[in-house]
Amino acid sequence: MFVRKKSINPASYRASSDLVPLVLAGSRAAIARMISRAEGEYDEAAGALAQLYRHAGRAHVVGITGVPGGGKSTLISALIRACSTGDNKVAIVAVDPSSPYSGGAILGDRIRMSDSAEASQAFVRSMATRGHLGGLARATFQAVDILDAAGYSPIFIETVGVGQDEVEIMTAAHTVVVLSPPGLGDDIQAIKAGVMEIADIHAVSKSDRPEAAATATAIRGMLALGSETQRSSWAPPVLTLSAPSGAGIDALKQAIDSHLLHLMESGEMVTRRRAIARTRILATINHLIRRRFDDGAETMATQLAAVTERTSDPSTAAEWLLGLNRADLA
Amino acid sequence: MFVRKKSINPASYRASSDLVPLVLAGSRAAIARMISRAEGEYDEAAGALAQLYRHAGRAHVVGITGVPGGGKSTLISALIRACSTGDNKVAIVAVDPSSPYSGGAILGDRIRMSDSAEASQAFVRSMATRGHLGGLARATFQAVDILDAAGYSPIFIETVGVGQDEVEIMTAAHTVVVLSPPGLGDDIQAIKAGVMEIADIHAVSKSDRPEAAATATAIRGMLALGSETQRSSWAPPVLTLSAPSGAGIDALKQAIDSHLLHLMESGEMVTRRRAIARTRILATINHLIRRRFDDGAETMATQLAAVTERTSDPSTAAEWLLGLNRADLA
Repeated sequence: MFVRKKSINPASYRASSDLVPLVLAGSRAAIARMISRAEGEYDEAAGALAQLYRHAGRAHVVGITGVPGGGKSTLISALIRACSTGDNKVAIVAVDPSSPYSGGAILGDRIRMSDSAEASQAFVRSMATRGHLGGLARATFQAVDILDAAGYSPIFIETVGVGQDEVEIMTAAHTVVVLSPPGLGDDIQAIKAGVMEIADIHAVSKSDRPEAAATATAIRGMLALGSETQRSSWAPPVLTLSAPSGAGIDALKQAIDSHLLHLMESGEMVTRRRAIARTRILATINHLIRRRFDDGAETMATQLAAVTERTSDPSTAAEWLLGLNRADLA
Repeated sequence: MFVRKKSINPASYRASSDLVPLVLAGSRAAIARMISRAEGEYDEAAGALAQLYRHAGRAHVVGITGVPGGGKSTLISALIRACSTGDNKVAIVAVDPSSPYSGGAILGDRIRMSDSAEASQAFVRSMATRGHLGGLARATFQAVDILDAAGYSPIFIETVGVGQDEVEIMTAAHTVVVLSPPGLGDDIQAIKAGVMEIADIHAVSKSDRPEAAATATAIRGMLALGSETQRSSWAPPVLTLSAPSGAGIDALKQAIDSHLLHLMESGEMVTRRRAIARTRILATINHLIRRRFDDGAETMATQLAAVTERTSDPSTAAEWLLGLNRADLA
């Protein structure tokens, strides 16, 4: 059901389990291959990905989101430069907001990011949608595992923050930065409502423009309104910055580090790790059910026909499918 | 885990199973109550909702989506008037793009729609997000079942078409209308990519503006580019309209009716019904798994702890949880 690589050179092909030690040793080629196999949903890679998950857990995962045109890619380029100090291995996973049907891509963003990555030795990877809901989130989580196990930290996840899928992806980050361009219209703000609330740090881009300060004030006002229902002792800072000139980038980097420190010291990191594990398990269950469905197991087909004909209903079919034991489903 | 009604007057309370015959007889009060119970995820209502699903299947379900500010609510008001002829009982289910966290609402839209509904005796219902991904889609599908079983047709589903959740909701419609305002910026077009491709009918609003014709031409160009990969013999028409003046509304109503006729005559309705049933079953499975998770069954908690500690991984936990038989899960 998914597009596999059309030709594999047998001489250069390695089993995924053989790639695991290479990934752990930091081989860029092995990392790139493992991510491709996660993205392509290769069954053969499942065991290796499970192993890598168990080796991961040390990286600081930072989500960066906001509407298109807000300057995310320029910001991330600047952040990479700021974070690439000493032995730090920085990575970026860019999640493509392209159609779930056509698999298109915002190429300009990819290219701009690659340029800055060349300069800094960062690992840059763009993830594309694979034709079904939820698959992109799952592959993105696995790409983060792979980079984490390979010793990358921080790992930035970039999404375009407009839908619930993007919100789901952001729940896998320890620290979420929401970037807003100055003077956004009201309609865009309405779209972003769900995303604004998951922000640990707010950044307003293009601080050289006069509207930037007003936008920052508007965000602070919104945060003050919501502070009664706040579930954390962390008060999200609102920063203004200009990625091209570098103004405000150091302050953003400091805010990201402070948030990590806050998570560790307050004990909130435990809660967040548990929430991330929950998201991951649910995403995997969805994936497994969907795969079995798409692979057309006979029991699935019978249930589907009954629900289509309305001699059954979705609840009865779902209960029945979940009640099957593993042997029946295999 | 969900907010229940705080006070129930025992004298006026009816079991959901007792509401079923009232819904089938068209009682507006019973319909409203059943939808509230679906939205609130009352366990007690599950059996009644399953019954109503089996009684449904006659309505023409029409999805209407597009970015905020495109004039959807005005358009739907005009469509209601155009469709409310003879004995037709028209319904609208408006899906709120509000935050998954705060449960807010675009009140202006609701109010504008309610006004027009009063005039036309249509059934208008606004669905709000309930704090978890997927829950909104499922409650929306059930609201459509209830209205369908009660004899409403057409049933319009209105969403703001920006995320994959909205795309999922639209897959439950027989006919999808995508409304675009004239002169949309490129950034918005990128967001909309996934939604444009699920359109059976394109409509450009504000036809009195000079940019409307250019936007229609741009959409036609995009459709021509994509026509090679088209999966249907239906060529989506691109209409321009002005809801306040009524220009183009009759043409849109005719296009919606023509699409239904096409689905019936081409046999594509069978395929579409099967795809809808599939979406419904998957959404229900997700819901059941999530409920069990949230209700803190002991087996779930053990798996969650192991994945959090990285002594297990999401795949192992998901396989194990799916492998449980129904007795273990109950």
